[in-house]
Amino acid sequence: MRKIGIIGLGNVGITVAYTLFTRGVADELVLIDPKSKKVRAEENDLKDALSCNHFHTKVINGDYDQLANADVLITAFGDIKATARTDDRFAEFPINVEQAKIVGPKVKASGFKGIWINISNPCDAITTILKKTSDFPKNRIFGTGTLLDTSRMKRQVADYLGNQDPKNIGGYVLGEHGNSQFTAWSTVSVGIRPLSKYISDSSKYKKLEENARQGAFEVISGKGYTSYAIATCAVRLIEAVFADAHTIFPVSVYLESLDTYIGYPAVVGANGIEHVEDISLTTAEKESLSKSADYIKGNLAKVGY
Amino acid sequence: MRKIGIIGLGNVGITVAYTLFTRGVADELVLIDPKSKKVRAEENDLKDALSCNHFHTKVINGDYDQLANADVLITAFGDIKATARTDDRFAEFPINVEQAKIVGPKVKASGFKGIWINISNPCDAITTILKKTSDFPKNRIFGTGTLLDTSRMKRQVADYLGNQDPKNIGGYVLGEHGNSQFTAWSTVSVGIRPLSKYISDSSKYKKLEENARQGAFEVISGKGYTSYAIATCAVRLIEAVFADAHTIFPVSVYLESLDTYIGYPAVVGANGIEHVEDISLTTAEKESLSKSADYIKGNLAKVGY
Amino acid sequence: MRKIGIIGLGNVGITVAYTLFTRGVADELVLIDPKSKKVRAEENDLKDALSCNHFHTKVINGDYDQLANADVLITAFGDIKATARTDDRFAEFPINVEQAKIVGPKVKASGFKGIWINISNPCDAITTILKKTSDFPKNRIFGTGTLLDTSRMKRQVADYLGNQDPKNIGGYVLGEHGNSQFTAWSTVSVGIRPLSKYISDSSKYKKLEENARQGAFEVISGKGYTSYAIATCAVRLIEAVFADAHTIFPVSVYLESLDTYIGYPAVVGANGIEHVEDISLTTAEKESLSKSADYIKGNLAKVGY
Amino acid sequence: MRKIGIIGLGNVGITVAYTLFTRGVADELVLIDPKSKKVRAEENDLKDALSCNHFHTKVINGDYDQLANADVLITAFGDIKATARTDDRFAEFPINVEQAKIVGPKVKASGFKGIWINISNPCDAITTILKKTSDFPKNRIFGTGTLLDTSRMKRQVADYLGNQDPKNIGGYVLGEHGNSQFTAWSTVSVGIRPLSKYISDSSKYKKLEENARQGAFEVISGKGYTSYAIATCAVRLIEAVFADAHTIFPVSVYLESLDTYIGYPAVVGANGIEHVEDISLTTAEKESLSKSADYIKGNLAKVGY
Repeated sequence: MRKIGIIGLGNVGITVAYTLFTRGVADELVLIDPKSKKVRAEENDLKDALSCNHFHTKVINGDYDQLANADVLITAFGDIKATARTDDRFAEFPINVEQAKIVGPKVKASGFKGIWINISNPCDAITTILKKTSDFPKNRIFGTGTLLDTSRMKRQVADYLGNQDPKNIGGYVLGEHGNSQFTAWSTVSVGIRPLSKYISDSSKYKKLEENARQGAFEVISGKGYTSYAIATCAVRLIEAVFADAHTIFPVSVYLESLDTYIGYPAVVGANGIEHVEDISLTTAEKESLSKSADYIKGNLAKVGY
Repeated sequence: MRKIGIIGLGNVGITVAYTLFTRGVADELVLIDPKSKKVRAEENDLKDALSCNHFHTKVINGDYDQLANADVLITAFGDIKATARTDDRFAEFPINVEQAKIVGPKVKASGFKGIWINISNPCDAITTILKKTSDFPKNRIFGTGTLLDTSRMKRQVADYLGNQDPKNIGGYVLGEHGNSQFTAWSTVSVGIRPLSKYISDSSKYKKLEENARQGAFEVISGKGYTSYAIATCAVRLIEAVFADAHTIFPVSVYLESLDTYIGYPAVVGANGIEHVEDISLTTAEKESLSKSADYIKGNLAKVGY
Repeated sequence: MRKIGIIGLGNVGITVAYTLFTRGVADELVLIDPKSKKVRAEENDLKDALSCNHFHTKVINGDYDQLANADVLITAFGDIKATARTDDRFAEFPINVEQAKIVGPKVKASGFKGIWINISNPCDAITTILKKTSDFPKNRIFGTGTLLDTSRMKRQVADYLGNQDPKNIGGYVLGEHGNSQFTAWSTVSVGIRPLSKYISDSSKYKKLEENARQGAFEVISGKGYTSYAIATCAVRLIEAVFADAHTIFPVSVYLESLDTYIGYPAVVGANGIEHVEDISLTTAEKESLSKSADYIKGNLAKVGY
Repeated sequence: MRKIGIIGLGNVGITVAYTLFTRGVADELVLIDPKSKKVRAEENDLKDALSCNHFHTKVINGDYDQLANADVLITAFGDIKATARTDDRFAEFPINVEQAKIVGPKVKASGFKGIWINISNPCDAITTILKKTSDFPKNRIFGTGTLLDTSRMKRQVADYLGNQDPKNIGGYVLGEHGNSQFTAWSTVSVGIRPLSKYISDSSKYKKLEENARQGAFEVISGKGYTSYAIATCAVRLIEAVFADAHTIFPVSVYLESLDTYIGYPAVVGANGIEHVEDISLTTAEKESLSKSADYIKGNLAKVGY
């Protein structure tokens, strides 16, 4: 039985829930949010869909006790309005730090022993605090990190080249899931060919990178939040955990060398992060990664982590 | 190729789009809404998901011209705040009548020749106006009607009996997709047994019917709108049209005998409404249906339809 | 994690495996069959599909030890050629009794504690022997029984009426999954209307019942076996178990009153058979059921069960 | 509406049909095979599944006339026993040439204007004959080619490295879908890293290539045919055509430079082959490709094509 808990039922958390529900991925969904009226409404909206849905999912208006035997936990609390105002996910940091300090110990107390995927922003920093406040093993908690940014970059490259499936594009956006992220262009390919065979003008790369980074804020300015792309990415990770797929994704993982959670390719399976990939970056990319790590760590230090 | 247009990208319209996208039902999605920034944001959010989604869907930030060769059209414009304030879908009527008068002729002008499923509320009345302002054949346009209310009723009955799959419950909510609707209890069964074998107390029936009718408003009061149940119902209808499934659903169809669109069971296939079911109702149920029809027609008369 | 064991990799067993694989229902599939070369070939054929499949499934060329922590077990051993020669599933009985006597104790020894769904024929009798030789709790093992026959009957009725979705048809084929089965016509409906509103001529009912009963043999005579319909039915049951759906299906369950496993409607959930339905049959139908039970029991008695 | 014709209902053709059916990909399936009893049996087996399947598909026991408005056509005729005896797909050539000469003109006469994907072996040669005998535009007919071999190679590499998702492996098997094929190792990667970072010993490459090439014959020796991997590959191509996905796949496409259909990466979309990829190969790989092309052309010349 696939049992999944979701903490935080904002637009992202509930879209993850619905995606699992409508595609029959989850057998049991535990919805947790302090806004009990909101949880009750989402629970009802999902249950009202059951007779027309192809699949059945048990929807549980839950509390932390329900997590004891859950397989996967998603944290998706946050305050998108702060991010929307500033185009900076760290605007949510003060609020989400407080949330994380509440959520971490509660998850620990629940006896949850599954795999924990954090979406709450700023993703790398909040993943760190959740890990620390819950004493969770570091391979069993990770963040969606730059998987979403990578998905945006692939789409930007595909659109720019014209009539390409974003699935044809390889490579990674690395670093913070935030403004200090960067596209590791040395890793980017179209099919098996390096992107440099297609684009030579360096200003184009700058523009594409900027588009990928700013993608979220454009969506937020138009609809108030982002939901579909991030939920699709999160569900893909959930599926990899359940099936023990050992798929490589750029996610927020703990990098020993930089001593922080940060967006980097890793193999995802039943144990969460099975291992971190060992890839080659250019000197400039290594510097960008290091700077991004410093930015994350600096912000964590300010709040005592 | 399955090409689907969606007019009105509020919470319902976009959730229909996402459901089609995440389950791989649509090959091409045309998103139409006067709020161009909103459409662009939803388009981007979906496209940003492509590299992580199992399926590919062409997402088109469209206008009416794109409907000429679409197979299915969904209308989902509306003003949920008016409904939320009043717990009455007719609160949206003045606004949506004006919308319908704009949308109907535009769809006609687009050359759309597919099947048109209307969700905009009040569903039966707006379906009528869309049909009239577009000169659309009456079997090729229908409304989601009481399919959603039926889904809510099934869930209420299942919950009340305890540990029953809502899919085990048969029968229909009929009439207006609105406050004059009613559950035709003579049609309701659990498996093959009439519900009367399970519940004898008539006050229970009243309560269950009330819960089904009020279900929407409870959800709206908790999350501001409803989205998942209605989208799941709409997508089920879309699938029946594409596969020419000839499945019976209670939807808003034109009933000759009552001279109005109203929630009633009908066979849905590639031609839209293949035929209206000929079911037996009790005298009281017939009266309720007739009263509900009068209510719809009275409101339409007030705005000249 | 959803882990499913399949014992017997004939056309039916492997089609169940593939259906779970191609739709992403299983996280782990354990394939068990004494023909090790066949198992290895099927394992390879599935693994060779992985990079093109939307979903990931761990395919394990397994033995009984792997069942200890499996959630669901399917038994699908058999000798279709015997059935094909005779148009009688009891032609496989002598062979499958011997198989069942081997399989039952092995499953017991494996420590399997999940839900066991038997497909091996003659389904009701073999389910009985598997239950007895494994000391399995009777609600945790059941057979696909007349779910397939019911599906065939629905399709026959839908075809006869013309342009009806088989899903519109309600009701059950009951009794042995074999030649003593019968359609309980008093339970059959089209939408909410009894079939008698559509068909009055009793010879038509005879013909439809005969078609449903003979459906398997027609398919067998054309392709040598049946696979898709039975696998689809079995997977539907598996999904109901995982999601604890509490859906009513006519399956081979232990009926206290007749002291045998036999095709009868029951609620299927996480505990297997949650309860047997209490339905009303006509006197003639009760007699048919009783005769069918006697037939199953008589055959079991001959082999000492 | 998605309408798909399948010519040749052996194990491969019917598994393609079932995959489309069980996953809800097809709205209409036209089954064509001279063995009318077999077609009727498969039609019945699928229709008997309808009431338990999540999706509805119209299954048509068809003839060529039905192809006039089909979107996609699959050819999967063949004689697997010949291949099984020899471990060489060209053993089927004499039989399949005769078949192709019958099928090509019949498809032409049917007025089929969609996209044609050939699976019949030897794939490259038969695709050529079908194209020529039907006067089909060369971008609108292509073969599954080395997509399956590539999928096998990815799985071999993933298995060898241990605990890798085959989806992590990039690169192509090129050339004939047959014994003159080769793995273009210069194209193969694990994540973003060239395989040479993982394997240095050249004998390992030989072994992996051999395993991929021989994969089919091992499966055939164990189960008599292959079905799941090839059907999964074919359905992936069908989905790319319907959604106009523009995904790169190694398929049997017409290469101007070598003047033959041969396995090579190409972009697949609504127009079939949108364009052939322009990739860099090593000198040795170019020679292997050229030799493989000569082998295909030599065999075609022998039968006058």
